[in-house]
Amino acid sequence: MSTELQQPTGATVDAPKMRVAKPKAPKEPQFTLKTPKGTKDWSDKDMVIREAIFETISKVFKRHGGVTIDTPVFERREILSGKYGEDSKLIYNLEDQGGELTSLRYDLTVPFARFVAMNGIQNIKRYHIAKVYRRDQPAMTKGRMREFYQCDFDIAGTYDSMVPDAEILSIAVEGLTSVGITDFKVKVNHRKILDGLFEVCGVQLDDVRRVSSAVDKLDKASWEDVKKEMMVEKNQPEDVVDRIGKYVLLKGSFRETLDVLKADEVLLSNESAAAGIKEMETAAAYLESFGIIDYLSFDLSLARGLDYYTGLIYEAVTSASAPPPKAEGDEKLSSKDKKKKKKEQGLDEDDNSENVGVGSILAGGRYDKLVGMFAGDKKKNSSIPCVGVSFGIERIFSLVKARAGIMDKVRPTSTQVYIMAFGGGKEWNGFLPERMTVAKKLWEAGIEAEFLYKAKPKPRQQFDAADKAGCPLAVILGQEEFLKGEVKVKELGLGEESDEGINVKLEDLTAYLKEKLNEKNGGGATEEIIRLLTSSEI
Amino acid sequence: MSTELQQPTGATVDAPKMRVAKPKAPKEPQFTLKTPKGTKDWSDKDMVIREAIFETISKVFKRHGGVTIDTPVFERREILSGKYGEDSKLIYNLEDQGGELTSLRYDLTVPFARFVAMNGIQNIKRYHIAKVYRRDQPAMTKGRMREFYQCDFDIAGTYDSMVPDAEILSIAVEGLTSVGITDFKVKVNHRKILDGLFEVCGVQLDDVRRVSSAVDKLDKASWEDVKKEMMVEKNQPEDVVDRIGKYVLLKGSFRETLDVLKADEVLLSNESAAAGIKEMETAAAYLESFGIIDYLSFDLSLARGLDYYTGLIYEAVTSASAPPPKAEGDEKLSSKDKKKKKKEQGLDEDDNSENVGVGSILAGGRYDKLVGMFAGDKKKNSSIPCVGVSFGIERIFSLVKARAGIMDKVRPTSTQVYIMAFGGGKEWNGFLPERMTVAKKLWEAGIEAEFLYKAKPKPRQQFDAADKAGCPLAVILGQEEFLKGEVKVKELGLGEESDEGINVKLEDLTAYLKEKLNEKNGGGATEEIIRLLTSSEI
Repeated sequence: MSTELQQPTGATVDAPKMRVAKPKAPKEPQFTLKTPKGTKDWSDKDMVIREAIFETISKVFKRHGGVTIDTPVFERREILSGKYGEDSKLIYNLEDQGGELTSLRYDLTVPFARFVAMNGIQNIKRYHIAKVYRRDQPAMTKGRMREFYQCDFDIAGTYDSMVPDAEILSIAVEGLTSVGITDFKVKVNHRKILDGLFEVCGVQLDDVRRVSSAVDKLDKASWEDVKKEMMVEKNQPEDVVDRIGKYVLLKGSFRETLDVLKADEVLLSNESAAAGIKEMETAAAYLESFGIIDYLSFDLSLARGLDYYTGLIYEAVTSASAPPPKAEGDEKLSSKDKKKKKKEQGLDEDDNSENVGVGSILAGGRYDKLVGMFAGDKKKNSSIPCVGVSFGIERIFSLVKARAGIMDKVRPTSTQVYIMAFGGGKEWNGFLPERMTVAKKLWEAGIEAEFLYKAKPKPRQQFDAADKAGCPLAVILGQEEFLKGEVKVKELGLGEESDEGINVKLEDLTAYLKEKLNEKNGGGATEEIIRLLTSSEI
Repeated sequence: MSTELQQPTGATVDAPKMRVAKPKAPKEPQFTLKTPKGTKDWSDKDMVIREAIFETISKVFKRHGGVTIDTPVFERREILSGKYGEDSKLIYNLEDQGGELTSLRYDLTVPFARFVAMNGIQNIKRYHIAKVYRRDQPAMTKGRMREFYQCDFDIAGTYDSMVPDAEILSIAVEGLTSVGITDFKVKVNHRKILDGLFEVCGVQLDDVRRVSSAVDKLDKASWEDVKKEMMVEKNQPEDVVDRIGKYVLLKGSFRETLDVLKADEVLLSNESAAAGIKEMETAAAYLESFGIIDYLSFDLSLARGLDYYTGLIYEAVTSASAPPPKAEGDEKLSSKDKKKKKKEQGLDEDDNSENVGVGSILAGGRYDKLVGMFAGDKKKNSSIPCVGVSFGIERIFSLVKARAGIMDKVRPTSTQVYIMAFGGGKEWNGFLPERMTVAKKLWEAGIEAEFLYKAKPKPRQQFDAADKAGCPLAVILGQEEFLKGEVKVKELGLGEESDEGINVKLEDLTAYLKEKLNEKNGGGATEEIIRLLTSSEI
């Protein structure tokens, strides 16, 4: 049976609401039928596209020797605390479960570090695609939800410098191109270089993270605004800020930017900066071997929010994810009008997001101390160094879904064959048990098949159902042919040039259908949609 | 790089614990590194097997025209309340999130009904494989966890009687056989027949559910014990209980049991029972068309706990899931000794489960009123009738994993080729960038490949790493051959009959490897493990 999702659940639309009044049952509470704030259902074609993206990126991960793990959706609260800085307030707590305090996971990185430490693992390449939870203000237009998927690949272990880092960047590039995203740039930087340049510019050690977070805004704000923030809010002297400006506005191709840094005697005199520059020099050769260096842009303003990074940091943006210009006239709307407009667009009235594109589509970096925080050994070196990438899967989904034509080509079910019965008159029994037997034969042969759950169905009903499922083939049990052990196979969806069909003996049916389907879509609906992801047609 | 999971996370073993003392950092709390009670990490071969089971059963679901949906892991609390009877106390609540009360989902059925009602869906076949949460006393040996997967297929919509019910039973049978489980019985019964027989036996309407739950224990308890419970705890007169006994001890093949019921004038005089018997008669023909009737056993003692069933109910058991005899001597152990023994077996000391096998491996039934509880319309008929199946995926996993030999044949990674460099002397540079270029070439061709993250690796290290990954092939960059544009391809894991290898030109490498891999495992590691599931070898 085909699905009848009357209300498509799109990525940028809030979950539909429906007030249910129950006047005849006063004991039952009136309630609002909706999903919790910042969450939504996924279904229909959205779900098919998302699953295809997961499968495609998983294949990339497996190609690089990744294994997958599955950790509980909630962790003991002490595992998460002290890992996310200011954002810790966004952690979802569960009610006390008999003395055990637990919280929903905030990301997949901290549970991974806990897993590595707990099991005494020395090295692992693991991927994990799962939901994480942040009690943030939802902003549907930006794809910011309270429940959303992360899609991570991390390499843990002690290796020669920058080798896993370069492979992680290669995985980032391959992951995006595997789903047909090619117009992106990966901005890269290095925490040791950043720390060193703040030091040589005269920033006090205690101020580094605060200054760093101001610098990180340079992708959205002008230098003047950032300078003001550093002077006014972060209390930095103007000469310090100007020296910082000289560095953080530096960006360009990986090799050229590296050359500028290598020529900077002041920076090289700083131990941290010199170490960072040397690592980036090492990386450059590997990035060339992987053929991905042209995707990268060395950008000294990239700082990344999370505390735990210790080396390479990066994030990828596409032109599609850059902030679009504001819609004309929006500024003139009153607050009330804006709320009304949001409501018309299907958004929460309290969704205070502006329409600023999808943001970065992946990000990551090296974090060498996190596992050590759990392993808790005395020797500094006992921590397991890690480097990882996290794909912004909901944002990637939005980009894929926005491609012209893709929604027309994707179909929600995998059904390949609709089994029908034609006939009429009082004598006709509708061949229901016979349709079941034929269906079973097809299922056993691995062919996706459906039939109408009706004893005596009309031809129209059956064609409509096949049409909704987007079925390419029909098998028809005709009143006379079937008694001779034959069925008619008919191609569907041909529009004007309707197919007359061909009679096939029952014993040859599955072989015939498999050949026919292989001609039509080369294996099946899943393969079809995965091919669609990188197809040049759309 | 291969994984080094020193502590395998088995299905029947509690998550390992590790006390971490931090004497030098008094400000940080001492904490226990473990997962929350009743939860565990999945990894390594367990994860590979579980993923293969999910993929195999998903394929069965897609074959039947199923679409998949994804609902939030938590729901508004009012959605869940009043749906699970006594078990509502097992629901996990989240802390109040600014006035919104939410709870982790208890199953996938209620969220599905909420989804159907909220979107005004008239008919859908949906499957959903996801985690659910029950604050139960964990019993690892029984596979009873607080966080576990469910794997559901449901058909919603108004159709001709028993047609979707028969297809659901066919999906149940196909799902189990698809993962190589064939020695099972599906016990079936019908709520209308049960309700009718209690009525004709003289049970008061208000007592039906309580009496029913006593009857449901007949698979584990003797009739004498159940009779006692009905008389003492449920206050039923002895003549009523004896009349019930006459019926609920009845079980056997579908057709034979049906014939007994059809000959029972008393039962047929009851409207509810007569309706149920008629539906089972209708189903019989369809079950024969699907060729699955011999898997079924009509069992009048099957009652199923959940309140919401209204028609067909069923559950599948295997001989492997029947209670094993108690280990000798266990009775004699003191409570303290029992705790010690559990600890030795890696179990929670407070795990009070007995070792009683894995229980039913799937279950389900018809529930025609649940969507209506959400849709809340006045007309009775406006509810959407549903029938579904839920696979007990963790139990199925235990059965698959217990098969002799399977753990030796499964490998954690999909890696097919290990890229190595051989050489030596001062001049030798280890070919690291060159190994990277070759790896990239293979990745681009879709071949899973790894190399050692080391500039100058020793042959032994590289073979060890390939061995851990279970790689079938090695590509070797030899000092001299590589400068001539050639590499050596060598088969691994041949033991005594070591392969000498064959020289291949770089430009022919991917084509050669693909052919070779196709010979060896017919497509890849994933395909290999999925074939293993139903292989007769294990």
